[in-house]
Amino acid sequence: MNIKEEIRKMKEAAPFLAASSEDTRNGALKNIAKSLKENADRIFAANAKDLKAAEENGISPSIIGRLKFNEHKLNDCIAGIEQLISLPDPLGKVTLARQLDEGLQLYRITCPIGVIGVIFEARPDALVQISSLCIKSGNCAILKGGKETAESNRVLFEIIHKAAEEAGIPSECMLQAELHDEISALLECHGYVDLLIPRGSNAFVQYIMDNTKIPVMGHADGICHTYVDAECDIKKAVRIVIDAKTQYTAACNATETLLVNRAIAPVFLPELAKAMKEAGVKLNGTEEVSGIIPGAVNVIGDDDFAKEYLDMEMGIKIVDDVLEAVKHINRFGSHHTDSIISDNEENIKTFMQLVDSADVYANCSTRFADGFRYGFGAEVGISTGKIHARGPVGLEGLVTYKYNLYGDGHIVGDYAEGRSSFNFKEL
Amino acid sequence: MNIKEEIRKMKEAAPFLAASSEDTRNGALKNIAKSLKENADRIFAANAKDLKAAEENGISPSIIGRLKFNEHKLNDCIAGIEQLISLPDPLGKVTLARQLDEGLQLYRITCPIGVIGVIFEARPDALVQISSLCIKSGNCAILKGGKETAESNRVLFEIIHKAAEEAGIPSECMLQAELHDEISALLECHGYVDLLIPRGSNAFVQYIMDNTKIPVMGHADGICHTYVDAECDIKKAVRIVIDAKTQYTAACNATETLLVNRAIAPVFLPELAKAMKEAGVKLNGTEEVSGIIPGAVNVIGDDDFAKEYLDMEMGIKIVDDVLEAVKHINRFGSHHTDSIISDNEENIKTFMQLVDSADVYANCSTRFADGFRYGFGAEVGISTGKIHARGPVGLEGLVTYKYNLYGDGHIVGDYAEGRSSFNFKEL
Repeated sequence: MNIKEEIRKMKEAAPFLAASSEDTRNGALKNIAKSLKENADRIFAANAKDLKAAEENGISPSIIGRLKFNEHKLNDCIAGIEQLISLPDPLGKVTLARQLDEGLQLYRITCPIGVIGVIFEARPDALVQISSLCIKSGNCAILKGGKETAESNRVLFEIIHKAAEEAGIPSECMLQAELHDEISALLECHGYVDLLIPRGSNAFVQYIMDNTKIPVMGHADGICHTYVDAECDIKKAVRIVIDAKTQYTAACNATETLLVNRAIAPVFLPELAKAMKEAGVKLNGTEEVSGIIPGAVNVIGDDDFAKEYLDMEMGIKIVDDVLEAVKHINRFGSHHTDSIISDNEENIKTFMQLVDSADVYANCSTRFADGFRYGFGAEVGISTGKIHARGPVGLEGLVTYKYNLYGDGHIVGDYAEGRSSFNFKEL
Repeated sequence: MNIKEEIRKMKEAAPFLAASSEDTRNGALKNIAKSLKENADRIFAANAKDLKAAEENGISPSIIGRLKFNEHKLNDCIAGIEQLISLPDPLGKVTLARQLDEGLQLYRITCPIGVIGVIFEARPDALVQISSLCIKSGNCAILKGGKETAESNRVLFEIIHKAAEEAGIPSECMLQAELHDEISALLECHGYVDLLIPRGSNAFVQYIMDNTKIPVMGHADGICHTYVDAECDIKKAVRIVIDAKTQYTAACNATETLLVNRAIAPVFLPELAKAMKEAGVKLNGTEEVSGIIPGAVNVIGDDDFAKEYLDMEMGIKIVDDVLEAVKHINRFGSHHTDSIISDNEENIKTFMQLVDSADVYANCSTRFADGFRYGFGAEVGISTGKIHARGPVGLEGLVTYKYNLYGDGHIVGDYAEGRSSFNFKEL
């Protein structure tokens, strides 16, 4: 298969998928859910091959857990598809309707982005989620999953593609890339591919961003902060910080740096150090932090706060006030997710307004930044970009709009030369 | 001045402008309008220097018309600012409010993009428009205008900056770049600059897009089409095509290619050729076109339809039907603005749905694609991108959003381990 030629055909088919009815797209999702159920044994058999290969290659048990696709995960996937079916159609929504002049009507109407390439980690459920989101939002999808689940991906894609086609989705609108080489070909397809969504390691996402002219949505690093303000419930703060750091250290929304108000540091830090020791977290802090909890921290300098640990390790710094916390976060953070723990309404307001991140929280764990937890049904990724979609990206982030203008022989010359004048009226 | 250092300071100030009240921003716009009026003579004197230099450099009268900033243009600018003041605040709008669980509330709130660099052509009114749009939308602006209006730009920027500062806008939030070298420095400021909006020639915009990691919004070329369908009023069609081609040939929304349905070509093309000859437009067409209006066209091949003339010159091709027209437009067009002239409702619907462009029209001139004509007050540019803003970009295209989540000690572990479960409810 020549992937560039397939993508060119996909681009030609994209407007037809964009114009498909809600019934066709929901019908395809229903058929996919049905086919997944009917083919469960085939899927599990393919997944067993992936798991066997992973064990033989000495892949760690925590990663093998992600590769696994069992009854439980299949049911979750099907529940996700059913939730998507029940969501309102994101396409064809009129977001502006304006008369420009007598007989000249402007409409702004939501439509799909077009052709989206998603490169994702080795998780079979991700393939199901992403392809379902793309079908619901009328987007053509090029899917490239991690090689560790190649067998599962192949079977899942075949089932989903066939079920979608049977329900009237043009066959060219879904494509699976299986070879790593095909990523390079995909990166060169500007003009045909409208958006790339890479998921994976910082280095991988950065590589994609640096090597294509196609717009890229996603995030490279996730340096998230929790700021513990002077007025707060220390027990609650410790509980939140433990969750934000340890609940899933490999996640992009795990807290990497803890900022502590100087006034509360002498009472808060010893409590925190105790809890962190129990949890097995290594602490790195400034000299001032070390002075308060001697022996409990490895001393680091300011530059070390640009580090994403993704592990049982955390940086700690003491700040004067909420403004210094904001300044640190806006400078060292990755504009992903940051949280303030405080009982002071004014400081919460300042933090929520001034922190320049996609997700800004008060009195809860940074780990909540996630499409499912936001009630989006699923997400194709989390965006730290400010252009287009920000934060967890669900259906709304997968649509754009076009302007449709209906006239009756209207020409600009009449307006430029004063024979007509605009007469704006919302319709 | 070290522009990178200034941009770094701007980035630090950006959250404060983002958090400024609507009153502060509208107050700044009022003060700018007042100061422009009071300093009219200074502005005109500076502009006279630019015009004198332009004449000495033998710049063509049509371009000198764009450099000129007189009483009439000043009044237009002030009217534009007054219109902006009257528009609703684009910031702080809650676009999603959802309870995730008891005591855990998610809000999605519009906010400015942050720091925007705009590089624009030599037109003093553009400087006023762009800086006003940025202030209203709470964005910091780096402005680089064409060198032919350097004197006018300097005085206008000084007046606008001072008036904004007096009204409480942080001084660091506006910056003028005057040297061409500073463009290169600006292109390297990813991490500080959130968006670049280059306006100008195809080659210039393409250069910007190819030489920065900062997201770029705008359009390089504008290959717009008008398709004349089989059923249509020939007189109306000729009038629209003449306007779309000749009303302002240098504009990106001027029609470059005319597609004609085979059924109507024998009657339509001779009428069109006559009108185009009178208007002084050179016609380039396929052999089939030449067969219908022999002697009136220069014969061209399929590849020539990727050309943007920006002049009194147009390509013509005959197509079977609306679907072939759509296919040609999606392949050769630049996804900018395309129009169908037809009395057939079904064909209009097909065209509006399947043409993959920012602006898709029926029975009117492609020249309507413009922020002012859409009632946006002004535009910072026209985007052919599908990510973020599309078509003419006004206030709405200059904002993004952030998610604010308010909790009361909520941690993810409780949900992951089944002690709590999500309880979504729209607020």
